Amino acid sequence: MKSKKPIRIIASGQYLPAQVSSEELEVRFSLPRGWAELHSGVISRHHVSFETIGYMGARAIEEALEKANLGLGDIDLIISAGASFDYPLPCQSSIIKSELREGLHCHVPAIHVDTTCLSFVSAFEIAAKMLDGDQYKRIVIVSAEIASKGLNTHNLETLTLFGDGASAFILAFDDSSPSAFYKAYFKTYSEGVYHTIIRGGGAVHFFRDYPYDEKLHSFDMDGMKVLKLAARKLPEFMDFVCSDLSVSLADVDVIVPHQASKAGLSLFRKMFHLSQDQVKENIATHGNCIAASIPLLLHDTIMKDEIKRGDLCMLIGTSAGFSIGALLFRY
Amino acid sequence: MKSKKPIRIIASGQYLPAQVSSEELEVRFSLPRGWAELHSGVISRHHVSFETIGYMGARAIEEALEKANLGLGDIDLIISAGASFDYPLPCQSSIIKSELREGLHCHVPAIHVDTTCLSFVSAFEIAAKMLDGDQYKRIVIVSAEIASKGLNTHNLETLTLFGDGASAFILAFDDSSPSAFYKAYFKTYSEGVYHTIIRGGGAVHFFRDYPYDEKLHSFDMDGMKVLKLAARKLPEFMDFVCSDLSVSLADVDVIVPHQASKAGLSLFRKMFHLSQDQVKENIATHGNCIAASIPLLLHDTIMKDEIKRGDLCMLIGTSAGFSIGALLFRY
Repeated sequence: MKSKKPIRIIASGQYLPAQVSSEELEVRFSLPRGWAELHSGVISRHHVSFETIGYMGARAIEEALEKANLGLGDIDLIISAGASFDYPLPCQSSIIKSELREGLHCHVPAIHVDTTCLSFVSAFEIAAKMLDGDQYKRIVIVSAEIASKGLNTHNLETLTLFGDGASAFILAFDDSSPSAFYKAYFKTYSEGVYHTIIRGGGAVHFFRDYPYDEKLHSFDMDGMKVLKLAARKLPEFMDFVCSDLSVSLADVDVIVPHQASKAGLSLFRKMFHLSQDQVKENIATHGNCIAASIPLLLHDTIMKDEIKRGDLCMLIGTSAGFSIGALLFRY
Repeated sequence: MKSKKPIRIIASGQYLPAQVSSEELEVRFSLPRGWAELHSGVISRHHVSFETIGYMGARAIEEALEKANLGLGDIDLIISAGASFDYPLPCQSSIIKSELREGLHCHVPAIHVDTTCLSFVSAFEIAAKMLDGDQYKRIVIVSAEIASKGLNTHNLETLTLFGDGASAFILAFDDSSPSAFYKAYFKTYSEGVYHTIIRGGGAVHFFRDYPYDEKLHSFDMDGMKVLKLAARKLPEFMDFVCSDLSVSLADVDVIVPHQASKAGLSLFRKMFHLSQDQVKENIATHGNCIAASIPLLLHDTIMKDEIKRGDLCMLIGTSAGFSIGALLFRY
């Protein structure tokens, strides 16, 4: 592999709100018992009650800081990475930062990055490029998402698929270990730009002119179109990534994919002949948590010792917009 | 100056919707003639009619590409940088990309960065860190903002202050010229996190639960608190920046500040004893265009030959959240 930078994940944390079982959702929405797991592959997910995105993000960062035995003053930049937001303005990163216990007294800058479900992967690449051991020694990336509020109660598949949660990672410039960032790749295929959308609430359908309408103001995904587009574009995308990196997917120890859907995960494994063990999964217990899915799953993988220092790890996924992204690093 | 990277602005473009004079607004909102200019310093600004953020952003990028005699295929990354959005999802960058003439056939990745009014400055730093002459040879940054739709018709000061517009810059890795990126600095002061806010429309006051209410769903800025916080924090911030860069503000040929308010611009000039010539301004003809203010003003400065190749230039501003940021480069 050509390019390489000494970037190391030094700690991670998470925050999950209360668990909601598929059985509870089935009762609430008059669905037959077993419907949710059958159609979305999700047995339980977490949904917020009192929590905001800022609250969850701050708790996840604090857990990561505690594990690393660091204070906020040891951090040079906070990057929040996600699609949902507490307020249309100011940026979500400044909200999360303000909710940190040390937030008021520490003036670490906070920026927000959004590539919908791939936001964490984009932020990881940006952090890796910015970390230099000088101005930027340690960067926190946090993905905190509330998906549950924007779901259409008439679209049963997305209603049972999505979950809320937050995960934070501290990345450091560290040339004393084999840990490394190699390269990230993204492609945006605009033919799928409107396959996944929340139409109302922005400048196009401004709220003053378009009063609340569940169809307009909730999450709308044409799952079949997304799956077909992914199936058509993934082979050429992965060919390009693997040949540019001079690596085969078989050489990658751990693959952490976005938990877009059960069908998407199956397609991905089949398409590239990958084993259950190699491709991690937490959709059954977390659902699709938008940009928080990849870091929550990576955090779980680390906690369960299913990834070891020195292992080659790939983050990969698709996102609304429509984009495909992949990032290779050595843990 | 210690760190330096061979980054060069190779072209810029803009899109401005129809001009709206202060006189028109004064008639529409029953204000005395001259009120708007007196209170906001704005004689005219631009407001959208048919335009979306995506439309304006795409036109600005196309103008920059034409000037540089480049196609979209020559660009390695699009970074959209701003606070407003056409749809809550997908990310604004994918919307802008999809509106480009070549958008459908060219799969250049598109990411969105938001630090409210400082988004362009954050994106400039990110682009400078990512450009490497290899994977990233040329990056487009585009700031497209619609402020006019979210204004409170009872807050006359913000109603007459804000404008819409878009500007795009192409940055390239180019070690054959004296052009260079030096360093960027940001600090986020959380005591001011709620001084500037749109409360409704996110996860905290979700549309379903809070019907349209102008007070809740429009832009709310406590201008006096923002000005006081800026006045208190700017001196220490600028001291730090200048001492770290080993530069004095007198050595900077061109300063391009965010056009937050007439009062803010006056305060900034007085505080650091800067001349009218050195600190550029377009608030009278454009108003405050959120993140598009700085690139629109930089674009104007270039078009008017008020900056020459080799000049030292500083971008500086404050943003909702509350943050201060500054970036130094050689044009």
